[in-house]
Amino acid sequence: MSTTMTQTANGSAAHHGAAGPLDNRTSPHVQLHTLPYDSVTIRGGFWGQHRSVNRSTSLKHGYNMLEKAGNFHNLRLAAGLAQGAYIGRLPFLDSDVYKWLEALAYELANGPDSELQNMADEAITLLAKAQGADGYLNSFYTVAEPGKRWVNLRDGHELYCAGHLFQAAVAHHRMTGSTRLLDIARRFADYIDSVFGPGKRRGVCGHPEVETALIELYRDTGEKRYLTLAKYFLDERGHGVVGAQPGRAIYYQDHVPVREATTVDGHAVRQLYLTAGVADLYMETGEEALLHALLHQWHDMTSHKLFLTGGVGSRVSGEAFGEPYELPNDLCYCETCAQIASIMWNWRMLLITGEGRFADLMERTLFNGFLSGRSLDGKRSRYENPLMRRAGARAYGPHGNERAEWYECACCPPNIMRLLSSLSHYIATNTDDGVQIHHYAPADIGADTAAGRVHLHLQTDYPWQEVVMLSVEQTPAARWTLSLRLPGWCHNSTLRINNKKVPVAVDDKGYLRLDRQWQTGDFVELCLPMQPRLTVAHPRIDPTRGSVAIERGPLVYCFESFDQPSEIDLLDVAIGRDAHLEALWRDDMLGGIMVIKATGCWVDAAAWGDDLYRPVSTRTPVTNRPMHLTAIPYYAWDNRGLGAMRVWVPLV
Amino acid sequence: MSTTMTQTANGSAAHHGAAGPLDNRTSPHVQLHTLPYDSVTIRGGFWGQHRSVNRSTSLKHGYNMLEKAGNFHNLRLAAGLAQGAYIGRLPFLDSDVYKWLEALAYELANGPDSELQNMADEAITLLAKAQGADGYLNSFYTVAEPGKRWVNLRDGHELYCAGHLFQAAVAHHRMTGSTRLLDIARRFADYIDSVFGPGKRRGVCGHPEVETALIELYRDTGEKRYLTLAKYFLDERGHGVVGAQPGRAIYYQDHVPVREATTVDGHAVRQLYLTAGVADLYMETGEEALLHALLHQWHDMTSHKLFLTGGVGSRVSGEAFGEPYELPNDLCYCETCAQIASIMWNWRMLLITGEGRFADLMERTLFNGFLSGRSLDGKRSRYENPLMRRAGARAYGPHGNERAEWYECACCPPNIMRLLSSLSHYIATNTDDGVQIHHYAPADIGADTAAGRVHLHLQTDYPWQEVVMLSVEQTPAARWTLSLRLPGWCHNSTLRINNKKVPVAVDDKGYLRLDRQWQTGDFVELCLPMQPRLTVAHPRIDPTRGSVAIERGPLVYCFESFDQPSEIDLLDVAIGRDAHLEALWRDDMLGGIMVIKATGCWVDAAAWGDDLYRPVSTRTPVTNRPMHLTAIPYYAWDNRGLGAMRVWVPLV
Repeated sequence: MSTTMTQTANGSAAHHGAAGPLDNRTSPHVQLHTLPYDSVTIRGGFWGQHRSVNRSTSLKHGYNMLEKAGNFHNLRLAAGLAQGAYIGRLPFLDSDVYKWLEALAYELANGPDSELQNMADEAITLLAKAQGADGYLNSFYTVAEPGKRWVNLRDGHELYCAGHLFQAAVAHHRMTGSTRLLDIARRFADYIDSVFGPGKRRGVCGHPEVETALIELYRDTGEKRYLTLAKYFLDERGHGVVGAQPGRAIYYQDHVPVREATTVDGHAVRQLYLTAGVADLYMETGEEALLHALLHQWHDMTSHKLFLTGGVGSRVSGEAFGEPYELPNDLCYCETCAQIASIMWNWRMLLITGEGRFADLMERTLFNGFLSGRSLDGKRSRYENPLMRRAGARAYGPHGNERAEWYECACCPPNIMRLLSSLSHYIATNTDDGVQIHHYAPADIGADTAAGRVHLHLQTDYPWQEVVMLSVEQTPAARWTLSLRLPGWCHNSTLRINNKKVPVAVDDKGYLRLDRQWQTGDFVELCLPMQPRLTVAHPRIDPTRGSVAIERGPLVYCFESFDQPSEIDLLDVAIGRDAHLEALWRDDMLGGIMVIKATGCWVDAAAWGDDLYRPVSTRTPVTNRPMHLTAIPYYAWDNRGLGAMRVWVPLV
Repeated sequence: MSTTMTQTANGSAAHHGAAGPLDNRTSPHVQLHTLPYDSVTIRGGFWGQHRSVNRSTSLKHGYNMLEKAGNFHNLRLAAGLAQGAYIGRLPFLDSDVYKWLEALAYELANGPDSELQNMADEAITLLAKAQGADGYLNSFYTVAEPGKRWVNLRDGHELYCAGHLFQAAVAHHRMTGSTRLLDIARRFADYIDSVFGPGKRRGVCGHPEVETALIELYRDTGEKRYLTLAKYFLDERGHGVVGAQPGRAIYYQDHVPVREATTVDGHAVRQLYLTAGVADLYMETGEEALLHALLHQWHDMTSHKLFLTGGVGSRVSGEAFGEPYELPNDLCYCETCAQIASIMWNWRMLLITGEGRFADLMERTLFNGFLSGRSLDGKRSRYENPLMRRAGARAYGPHGNERAEWYECACCPPNIMRLLSSLSHYIATNTDDGVQIHHYAPADIGADTAAGRVHLHLQTDYPWQEVVMLSVEQTPAARWTLSLRLPGWCHNSTLRINNKKVPVAVDDKGYLRLDRQWQTGDFVELCLPMQPRLTVAHPRIDPTRGSVAIERGPLVYCFESFDQPSEIDLLDVAIGRDAHLEALWRDDMLGGIMVIKATGCWVDAAAWGDDLYRPVSTRTPVTNRPMHLTAIPYYAWDNRGLGAMRVWVPLV
């Protein structure tokens, strides 16, 4: 272990003062600053439970899978440590190792674990040996196609893999203080910088990722060449440099220059990794055209192309965004990685603007379309996250119906790992004048303000319970502002400070700003009423027309067939506008969940007969009978076998 | 020209007494018999117009495209008549030549044309030279992959191509009397029969087609080995012989034995070519298990997986049927070839059972989801036939948005040609006791009954006008039954015989049975009221919920943006239950169409704001303003550029 490491109060190993996946503390064009990683510790609660599974099960499972799938073997071949052929057909298998290693790095900071430590050390030793003398590091182009380095930037994912290496390296350096992996990353980045750029080779990767990674590498090392190179790659995009076939430029995100983009289009993960990179560049340069484009793109995504779950990417074909209002419940893609990319981008937009709408979307995505990506036991992941599944339905996408232990293209599993491992990073930020809490979880939060050091202790059973309690553990004598996000779904919130009711005043960014001279021991109690609610969708969307979904707090609910009377086909249930909705804690179900009991009805469609179509003028012989329905949080579906599932049901 | 040919009264060259694409006159297990091809002549009217374009434009366009795309070139390579490399990547390019040649054959019977005659002769000469000494004929496996004959039956389409050759050959023989192409086909079939079968090589083609074709070859030649071989291929299917990867058997129609099938599944064209072959086998063998399976499959298709247009195949992925009630308006595949396959299968079911429901579906498919497959000028074809297109939407399938002149896989264009060229075949049938009219078009119909020869003259402007008039031109003295299909969409029909109203009595198969002692000059007038009507869809279907479509007679209508006020987004129109619908003939539009003027309303969705989702409890700020909408027949869409289009619109 590096001598620069310090043990934090909770036994973790974060390099003192180093930030998490993004460190914008020196970025000039931001409203909010990220906190050092060891400043926020999540202590149990909802996310603690999922993070604990992630740490104890998923990371080790990932290690085994990376061995089984050949990722380590291929790197060993590149390192001259093994004999044989490259395993697998795909050129980007190294990236799975990097994402997993990035997750490991955060876990080393979350708390010591010699097994995780050994895994990380072993992997880094392997990478060091697999790296070429010139700094190049890619097992596929070293072993499987040795003569083809930089030949097919469009499909080869070489720069994409490099980007994931850089992110892992920055995380490992920040979390442990060690520069072992960072040195590997820098050698590779320096080599890439010697190859690409103005006056050198033109080129841009078919899969954005290296852009955001290079900027983080710049932030971590101070090496401005990396920022310049990221800007070069971003500037090149949209000018046909990728060399896509006609009509395919959009898949590779080469259809429009980043400053001229007004919509989110094409491959959803590529699009949102790209917008993350553009946001990073804005944070460093303040170039208004970048932010202008990003705000337009965000508007397009949220007002035209977003599923209720935070899922994005309507089309299996091309793993792509669809047209405005093209939001199929059953055939959507909503790749788990696209939701992760959306969270990454929205985090950057939040830091840039300080506006709660970006945190709102992060929250919607985290609790629903992201978390549904993995089984509760931490071992299986999904690509597609549909909002409906018919009983016995065959897979509509290429990855089967059920979550799988691993995939040939296993981008999602380690991506989930690194986000969960680093989740404490996203809880809070600071500014000169105070501390902002964006996401509610039981946590200890430390942050510097201009007035001095602040320590907060946050207690909550969010998203199950309505109350968030903060106690001020340390505060400077001078005034500072505690900002609490008021979630967009929430109405009628109440606030108490030291047991005294305080009027709730939300600023134009969606935050309660509590500007006071705080005292140690001050106690803030925010109540975010969580009555279950019925939600309707925009009338331009076809498959949700005349339908409602149940939400409670930040959670989207769904009906899974297991919880309804067995004689009922889930296609035949409906809910009335005046349905009685009751939240009920079930400790014994799905790791402990709040279910929603709803009065609904069973639509006897059998009476409709065999015809699919009939004149409107004939009286439709359908009868409705009252029944009780049970909804579970969407994220928890498909953990009891694969039944039928619906988020939206007809409104009767 | 063969000496066995006779010129028919209308100058056509049909081999006297030979039937069209299907000749079941000697099949023991049928209710209805096909008529000799020259017994029915379509004279103008709706289909005459489309057939005239087909004959004068599409066939010659096809000839040029087959030259341009390399199909002829590849056959010349196989024949040793050209030098160079095989053009194209696909192994089934020969099948496009065969389907086009089959269409040519019908046109030679529809009327003499030396240019068409020369094209056919030239192609047949080429095929004769391309055939191997052993009878094998396939340009791909002769030229591009010479050592791989029968190596990859799953994907190689060798037997599929052979089947299309057999169909073309049978058509050419029947239509011209010449055995030139038939001899080629028989040599190939004999060779295939020497390779495959019990005690020989096991194998079954990944794409069904050869089965139905072999049975027709048997019917035309009397060679029972072809029927036996077809039965062998049908029996083999569903036992893993195709050798599909896990989960892919359904794509190749190898997932279930044909007698055990209860649903239509997997690749839609393959599924329906297969059911056509099974129906053919039933007609010859009467094996109840086959018909039992087919009826179950038909029920599954029509009550779960059928679009209003007759389109089938919900999924782009795998070109496949979807799950029950999975019927997306915007993302559906509905491949033109799947509709053609559906028509082929339904024709066989009609012949087997005599039940009008099969003719109803043929009609729905012909006038809507089939005919939309081609542009009105006969030059461009579609693969996908969606029921909705948003303004400016990007293609959701692999074939672009607009109809194209040709495709790399150009299965649809010549398939449309052969169906239109042979359409007169499907108008009428006979039985010992009479004549059945299934489809209404101006036509001369001759048929034998046990009582003697019948000639009918049919006049109608169907589907535009409600009246069908039949005059009896020739009749035996004894009683016989004239059966007229009463379309399933029709209510309140009226019937007059010799200007005297006669009660309409529909039998349990959906036909008006007029059992009389007919006189020459008898005049039957059937009125099929065509008030425009609003149609609703089964409540289990998501994307049509709360919506209506306009139909009139057999035509499904759609709204195309060109016909609505330009300031209106087609996503914002709606129709009330009591909408006034008025049919209006427009001679100047789209080749002459009946438009439907509808009172509707414009839904001001802008007031909804940017949110895609909102609580049901808040009053939705949407206002509706009355407006006039204009609908056109669905088949005619996308002939004035590519605008927005919708079949279903919300019911307000």
